[in-house]
Amino acid sequence: MGSIVDELDLNGHPFGPQTLPYGSFTTPGRPEPRLGVRVGDERVLDLTAAAEPLLPEHAPLLEEGTLDRLLAAGPETWARVRAAVTEWLTEGRHRDRIVPLLVPAEAARPRLPFTVADYVDFYASEHHATNLGRILRPGGEPLTPNWRHMPIGYHGRAGTVVVSGTPVTRPAGQRREPDGTISHGPSRRLDFEAEVGFVVGTASRPGRPVPLAEADRHLFGVCLVNDWSARDIQAWEYVPLGPFLGKSFATSVSPWVVPLAALDHARVAPPPREPRPLPYLDDTALSPPWGLDLKLTVELNGHRLSHPPAAGLYWTAAQQLAHLTANGAWLRPGDLLASGTVSGPERDQRGSLIELTWNGAEPLTLPDGTTRAFLADGDEITVTATAPGPAGARIGLGEVRGRVVRWGT
Amino acid sequence: MGSIVDELDLNGHPFGPQTLPYGSFTTPGRPEPRLGVRVGDERVLDLTAAAEPLLPEHAPLLEEGTLDRLLAAGPETWARVRAAVTEWLTEGRHRDRIVPLLVPAEAARPRLPFTVADYVDFYASEHHATNLGRILRPGGEPLTPNWRHMPIGYHGRAGTVVVSGTPVTRPAGQRREPDGTISHGPSRRLDFEAEVGFVVGTASRPGRPVPLAEADRHLFGVCLVNDWSARDIQAWEYVPLGPFLGKSFATSVSPWVVPLAALDHARVAPPPREPRPLPYLDDTALSPPWGLDLKLTVELNGHRLSHPPAAGLYWTAAQQLAHLTANGAWLRPGDLLASGTVSGPERDQRGSLIELTWNGAEPLTLPDGTTRAFLADGDEITVTATAPGPAGARIGLGEVRGRVVRWGT
Repeated sequence: MGSIVDELDLNGHPFGPQTLPYGSFTTPGRPEPRLGVRVGDERVLDLTAAAEPLLPEHAPLLEEGTLDRLLAAGPETWARVRAAVTEWLTEGRHRDRIVPLLVPAEAARPRLPFTVADYVDFYASEHHATNLGRILRPGGEPLTPNWRHMPIGYHGRAGTVVVSGTPVTRPAGQRREPDGTISHGPSRRLDFEAEVGFVVGTASRPGRPVPLAEADRHLFGVCLVNDWSARDIQAWEYVPLGPFLGKSFATSVSPWVVPLAALDHARVAPPPREPRPLPYLDDTALSPPWGLDLKLTVELNGHRLSHPPAAGLYWTAAQQLAHLTANGAWLRPGDLLASGTVSGPERDQRGSLIELTWNGAEPLTLPDGTTRAFLADGDEITVTATAPGPAGARIGLGEVRGRVVRWGT
Repeated sequence: MGSIVDELDLNGHPFGPQTLPYGSFTTPGRPEPRLGVRVGDERVLDLTAAAEPLLPEHAPLLEEGTLDRLLAAGPETWARVRAAVTEWLTEGRHRDRIVPLLVPAEAARPRLPFTVADYVDFYASEHHATNLGRILRPGGEPLTPNWRHMPIGYHGRAGTVVVSGTPVTRPAGQRREPDGTISHGPSRRLDFEAEVGFVVGTASRPGRPVPLAEADRHLFGVCLVNDWSARDIQAWEYVPLGPFLGKSFATSVSPWVVPLAALDHARVAPPPREPRPLPYLDDTALSPPWGLDLKLTVELNGHRLSHPPAAGLYWTAAQQLAHLTANGAWLRPGDLLASGTVSGPERDQRGSLIELTWNGAEPLTLPDGTTRAFLADGDEITVTATAPGPAGARIGLGEVRGRVVRWGT
């Protein structure tokens, strides 16, 4: 008897056996959340239903229907659950027990896959930070003096992180007009930011920084993030305490969290850093230091805007984690670390409209003949990504998608 | 038969029947959390134990041992629970049933009273913001141009909010030395910030700003906050995305949340604002607009440092709530809004060491002859407060206390 993977011809598929991302879903008529594993394009394995008969020792971690308890359980448990699911899907002897647990993907309504504890957004792309510096502080040094010394970041609003597909209401707020007057109304410069998110599993201890070499033990997996941004609101509010209402109205995440274990083949050497970072951030001693070779694609209403490459991020997830805990702050399961906008050196690698249109000075023309300096009501932004997998396969990351809804509706 | 309040002579006591703050506690040998009401200096009413027999319709809200479910239940329920507790303590006929439910305060070990959802720290004191501007940007305008137009704020780290009494490890981090080199080590400029915290109860809806007049329905109560701050770490990191590791290592809160309902007599007119705020922040149409006349006291190792007056805060809690939701962001039960450092116009009303010592230029001399520019290891900061209550009584807010522990211990 063939395995499910063979039967569905999923070898080499981006959501084949090398990927096995986790998410939370409901189906029509069954409102209780369940934990699922995406299998190909058309199926979701109901892991909550499977656990009781097939993985009873870990069923309490999976019965809640979210990733929360599994995140907290730590890397040895993550490996055991992943090994079990792999076996179910790739060995013919499990076929008949697993087939009834496959839910049609079109019937699975995604939920937020985990409870977001704290959400920290970094600013890890040198190209993005440089572009923003050139746009917002023309004539000055594009990077602030601290940028090459630490992964700059700030805390975002965890409570407004929403799952892909959730409509995003255009935010309202204060804007400073060119004549200096202050007005209030819907943002006129609504933007997206294509980012990579890292989901923290294992907690860390108060007052105990996480060394670079131990980051793997705390990072459970990866999702995609759209950190929606209202550039006009942000520009007026952000000095001196940073972004607040310009970002806090919504942050979208992809429904499928790809375990870090699926991304072994996607590890790449990070770019060289100058100056050499302080020891707690110096990953040249790691064997090997690693970024992730994720190739993002951004679409606006189905039209491809750009292909941001995460491989070039200056600061890696391990460095972000080491920095975040360097002061003694501790991690909780469900902490979400986002990379900040991923932008590459080329124009078609920019991960935000403010960069693509150079703050609106060079509007984009879409295939329907309309132009965009920033997002219009009704616009839909979709970010997808793939990464290298074993034996030439690709790892899929699922999509983060959101449509802009008019303020006040 | 006399009531408990009469028997214990608590009329007029800061934790008498006009206050009745809620907290969460355990006792030796009983690790499960219970919800309590502080009664005088020496007793805590075990509300979790009382609810089952005496308030069965609300027992499910109280059995968990934290405020979380009560927060979410909304203002009508808050009023019913408070009325019941008031009756138990003030009417003699309840005495015999309630006395066995009083736990000695010395046996009640405080826990964090609620799960902190998002923590937002504002910057609402004009005197504090002006002092900081003068210290950090001498010669320039002390207030940024946006300051009088909106309550400036940022998201802090919810996961490192700890209850009073929790030791606070001195943070480590990057500092820029006077010669421009970057070093790493324990903060040399550790400070406190005495603040007032507002605890959100009722959630709000996505895309629906909370009008000023409805803030009362969402605000459950008030606690005290010490937003510990490492000035050297913060100074180097905070441009352009705001405070991060300089603040994220710990934020202490008092264990007793005083319901807003106890603070009716503490409402005072806020200071005049110029320019007049935009309509969504203009509280002159409220009947009446309100700040809270809380008088804070800050002690360092038992020596009184200052008496910051919260009545003078430029931006009120209602305005902070209206601003926070003005972009469509929504509230969750357990959101914590802190005022930012409370400072008055006088020197002995300053709520932080950076102001009291003018960034270290004017060190304080303590009664033991030692001096302080910033906090030393072993130093203990205690913030307390009272507010006017009915019939000349005072409302007590309990204390937020924390001792600085050496980095690496």
